[in-house]
Amino acid sequence: MESRSPVRTVNAYAAPSATEPLVPTTIERRDVGARDVLIEIRYAGICHSDIHTVRGDWGPITYPQVVGHEIVGVVAEIGPEVTKHAVGDRVGVGCMVNSCRECENCRAGMEQYCLKGNTGTYASTDRDGTITQGGYSTHVVVDEDFVLRVPENLDFSKVAPLLCAGITTYSPLNHWNAGPGKKVAVVGMGGLGHMAVKIAHAMGAEVTVLSRTLSKQDDGLKLGADHYYATADPKTFEDLASTFDLIVNTVSAVIDLDAYLGLLRLDGTLVNVGAPAQPLPVTVFTLFGNRRSFAGSGIGSIAETQEMLDFCAEHGIVPETELIEASYINEAYERVLSSDVRYRFVIDTATLAS
Amino acid sequence: MESRSPVRTVNAYAAPSATEPLVPTTIERRDVGARDVLIEIRYAGICHSDIHTVRGDWGPITYPQVVGHEIVGVVAEIGPEVTKHAVGDRVGVGCMVNSCRECENCRAGMEQYCLKGNTGTYASTDRDGTITQGGYSTHVVVDEDFVLRVPENLDFSKVAPLLCAGITTYSPLNHWNAGPGKKVAVVGMGGLGHMAVKIAHAMGAEVTVLSRTLSKQDDGLKLGADHYYATADPKTFEDLASTFDLIVNTVSAVIDLDAYLGLLRLDGTLVNVGAPAQPLPVTVFTLFGNRRSFAGSGIGSIAETQEMLDFCAEHGIVPETELIEASYINEAYERVLSSDVRYRFVIDTATLAS
Repeated sequence: MESRSPVRTVNAYAAPSATEPLVPTTIERRDVGARDVLIEIRYAGICHSDIHTVRGDWGPITYPQVVGHEIVGVVAEIGPEVTKHAVGDRVGVGCMVNSCRECENCRAGMEQYCLKGNTGTYASTDRDGTITQGGYSTHVVVDEDFVLRVPENLDFSKVAPLLCAGITTYSPLNHWNAGPGKKVAVVGMGGLGHMAVKIAHAMGAEVTVLSRTLSKQDDGLKLGADHYYATADPKTFEDLASTFDLIVNTVSAVIDLDAYLGLLRLDGTLVNVGAPAQPLPVTVFTLFGNRRSFAGSGIGSIAETQEMLDFCAEHGIVPETELIEASYINEAYERVLSSDVRYRFVIDTATLAS
Repeated sequence: MESRSPVRTVNAYAAPSATEPLVPTTIERRDVGARDVLIEIRYAGICHSDIHTVRGDWGPITYPQVVGHEIVGVVAEIGPEVTKHAVGDRVGVGCMVNSCRECENCRAGMEQYCLKGNTGTYASTDRDGTITQGGYSTHVVVDEDFVLRVPENLDFSKVAPLLCAGITTYSPLNHWNAGPGKKVAVVGMGGLGHMAVKIAHAMGAEVTVLSRTLSKQDDGLKLGADHYYATADPKTFEDLASTFDLIVNTVSAVIDLDAYLGLLRLDGTLVNVGAPAQPLPVTVFTLFGNRRSFAGSGIGSIAETQEMLDFCAEHGIVPETELIEASYINEAYERVLSSDVRYRFVIDTATLAS
């Protein structure tokens, strides 16, 4: 009897090492298992994490490595036990493709915080022992429980970054109750920051952008910010002392955290979604004032990611994107590193086909 | 017409400088104003903050300085507009004696977080421009709104430390919902730590002490801890990973915060009530795991302090204390600095009388 779905060789763009440019290549995707979905990828976003990963900033990885965890496409095939998705559906995959499903956090529906570590969409060890390969590719095979439904009214060529930049900002805004009557600050006006502005505004919060300069002020106000301040100006920190209920810090660089914590009002929280590799010094006396908190938040659960996609559909929210061909990936990386993108690159994976 | 209540000269124990021992002296207390209460002090606790303050660890102060912000006594006189207290009442004064009463936080009944800074019981600039002088003294004059009622069933010679060590631990335990089904860790088994154990246990939480060694284990279990671990043993941090809903850190020394943050389960908070002068480095990736928070908490509001006193009366909670004469203060300071007290010194202020 012939296998219904043999391992298939598919086109991709991979990093051959930590120091070389990404190159076209082929990789193998696993058989479509009983509960798997084969997705024909249409678009893949470029996230700063992709660059950190391939360059080894977050630790050594195995090469060649295909990255990309902002994936949308169309279901091409399903396993016999799949019930949540059908061939032809518009679907998405974000930062994780599995978790242990047994730990306290998984049982609570918070698989992003799986105590054994969730299985990342790339550079992670899969259940079968292979290294997961990401979305800069024409196809991917994913367990149906980790596949999202992409609402029809969202522009398919722009929606991919919601799967990381969208959920990573939606989740803390949702958890810390951004909404009417709440003052929310967004630190950094990049891929994550511009999504935080759109989502926080749609939630009904009063939104302030704190960016190094005012160079993106027009954009910020257009995307939904009520106020825009330059953090290069020390007066900003005087004017806004004890103001915010929530500050979402999207910056991965080391910032003067105490200065930002001082902007929180009573019981306010500064939550980091940016991931600096070095420790940040925190002065306890700053936390004493106003009973402030410094927290971290990582992506969101699968259920919350679906909720975010539905929320964005309801409010007509998609990222601001620049669509590129695969051959432009290395140049795009350089532009991401110099903050020269408004605000997310999306790869048209049709350009990987040949 | 003679003044009803002239400035009075009272006995006290004061620090003459940052480097000299405390000495007996006299200080002047202000007239009893319309809304003031004159308290004949009976007992005053010694808090580690007293030592930090007189030695200039937290910045320069004006000398001579009388410290002490764990004060209980009996009302000796009241101003004509006082309604909350009567002559002969058993009362207490904690870490603050006033606040602006106008800012957002004061209006919310959170005067400990007064945006203009509350008026500390000592070493603070009072409304009349003088420097406040603390409880190592025979009398103090305090606005009635900052005077607490001390329940009759609490041992008067032991109760004073509730006014700082008690409320400082009660407030975060209360705010972060310590109670049945919650796992609470207390870092440090000193003046604050032993109160945190008693209060968290009385609230119904499962209490674990994390102390450098097991030297106070018997005490800890007797005071209400369910478990006791030595933090000098690295295995403690493996065994207790992702365990606690709340960690109350009472240690003022710099600790390896990341190691302790790793002990928090999903949505857990580590709250510092200890006040290290140096910044503490925090690794953001540790906060990402389990969506952890690092927070600070400073004393409690006046209303919450009264609630704490009533809670302690209901549960029969008083600190473990060693009663001393005023002449022993300097020796007591040395013993506090070497953690050689179980668990709080209380000065019998009758010994200041001569």
